[in-house]
Amino acid sequence: MTFEYELRLGMSSVDAAGVLFYPELFRHTHDAYEAFMADRGLDLAHLLREGRYGLPIARAEADYLGPLRHGEQVRIKVEVSRIGERSFTIQCELTDSRGHACARVTTVHVCVDRATGRATALPEALRLRLGQARPAGAEAGDP
Amino acid sequence: MTFEYELRLGMSSVDAAGVLFYPELFRHTHDAYEAFMADRGLDLAHLLREGRYGLPIARAEADYLGPLRHGEQVRIKVEVSRIGERSFTIQCELTDSRGHACARVTTVHVCVDRATGRATALPEALRLRLGQARPAGAEAGDP
Amino acid sequence: MTFEYELRLGMSSVDAAGVLFYPELFRHTHDAYEAFMADRGLDLAHLLREGRYGLPIARAEADYLGPLRHGEQVRIKVEVSRIGERSFTIQCELTDSRGHACARVTTVHVCVDRATGRATALPEALRLRLGQARPAGAEAGDP
Amino acid sequence: MTFEYELRLGMSSVDAAGVLFYPELFRHTHDAYEAFMADRGLDLAHLLREGRYGLPIARAEADYLGPLRHGEQVRIKVEVSRIGERSFTIQCELTDSRGHACARVTTVHVCVDRATGRATALPEALRLRLGQARPAGAEAGDP
Repeated sequence: MTFEYELRLGMSSVDAAGVLFYPELFRHTHDAYEAFMADRGLDLAHLLREGRYGLPIARAEADYLGPLRHGEQVRIKVEVSRIGERSFTIQCELTDSRGHACARVTTVHVCVDRATGRATALPEALRLRLGQARPAGAEAGDP
Repeated sequence: MTFEYELRLGMSSVDAAGVLFYPELFRHTHDAYEAFMADRGLDLAHLLREGRYGLPIARAEADYLGPLRHGEQVRIKVEVSRIGERSFTIQCELTDSRGHACARVTTVHVCVDRATGRATALPEALRLRLGQARPAGAEAGDP
Repeated sequence: MTFEYELRLGMSSVDAAGVLFYPELFRHTHDAYEAFMADRGLDLAHLLREGRYGLPIARAEADYLGPLRHGEQVRIKVEVSRIGERSFTIQCELTDSRGHACARVTTVHVCVDRATGRATALPEALRLRLGQARPAGAEAGDP
Repeated sequence: MTFEYELRLGMSSVDAAGVLFYPELFRHTHDAYEAFMADRGLDLAHLLREGRYGLPIARAEADYLGPLRHGEQVRIKVEVSRIGERSFTIQCELTDSRGHACARVTTVHVCVDRATGRATALPEALRLRLGQARPAGAEAGDP
């Protein structure tokens, strides 16, 4: 049920010490999230152009467990860890080529009605598609 | 008449060798171009939201004359080097803190009618404002 | 005592909805942090090239309170919110041109001995310089 | 003989109009170039850490033939178009999911001796590996 995304850590992503520059961590997990959503039939590009609602990120957290180096083949595991009334939470874990966990990123995505600019209930179609990847034991409940 | 823009080269802009990662050169000259346009009373954010035309970049060129290092205070000189019928050209020169020229970037911006998606004549108001910075000897003539 | 950093939100920092793409938030607060450190006499570029220790980020958190739009003049307030035995915490608050708080970012920086790769005590010189900006009520204590 | 690299154009790469922000074009072609070099047995990360020479980019050019939109599946074709005495040239062509050419990027990479900081002859091993992808009709000769 878990979605995985892979990338090779290019020169564009590392700092002068040759390790991942941390804002790039969020860039790559966003790419992984977009690929995950596309895999669930949720096209964020279409949503942004046509949709009645948006899904801006209200909160982001990251823990860096170990350095990811230039040239490393990185694997990102994407999960929906919570589906609430008006928001959901995505968790990403990054592992290096030896399978060691190097970073974890959590993002909270809020459903916003574009006409009013206010948080609104997640559309049922979105909830169902997100739920396909819902891990055992996850519980609803907004932050 | 020349517009100048300054920045401190952060860790976000350098590669594993501690020197400017070259795509960042284009990012910073685009920031300088936006600041230049704002200084001429041309708000690109407003243009993108409301405008009948866009100004996409059709061509970009850069020459790297010497390394720009992490922490360097960089100065970008911005000039309009050509105003044509349906496009204009921006030239940027980057110098380091000792005044040495380290890079030159040239971009060609085409005026595109959003309704048709085709190149169209530069609006007179835009032409006038760009012309305020026109260097001596510049000549009209599309590429 | 508070350090402030300003930037104009360029096209490079916004998404297809015209608002700040959230990984860019971390990029800009890192630029602000580097400027803050330089202001305290701490040159991170020099440290990375020559230093016996590094200051990698072990944890980052951000809350987005409201959209920051393309062209916005953003002000970032930088503070040292905690100085521990082997790490310190930086807090940044971003406000828009009307003075509304739009985002808060917290980063934990750990002092790592480059020879051993392990966390080590903050050098006294670093602690003193960071302490110049220490807000009233801050307490020591590692995470 | 041609090397191909694929990517999905994420939100990180588009501007407020929903099309590729042009500095991102150089970022993605650099990722493609790194993957191409790795495929030829040339590990740029290793070269940067250990090597006696570097391969900085002395010149870059790009032509944008048509818009690449958020969510597009982009294919980058990478070729060595010239191998000179002390430099080589890489050409990339980007096509969209319908096979239309949308951009071309050319970069000139100069071999620099790290001890002296001066241009030097391409090592024979590098020349041989690059030549594996050499297109018919290519000729030596520095710019």
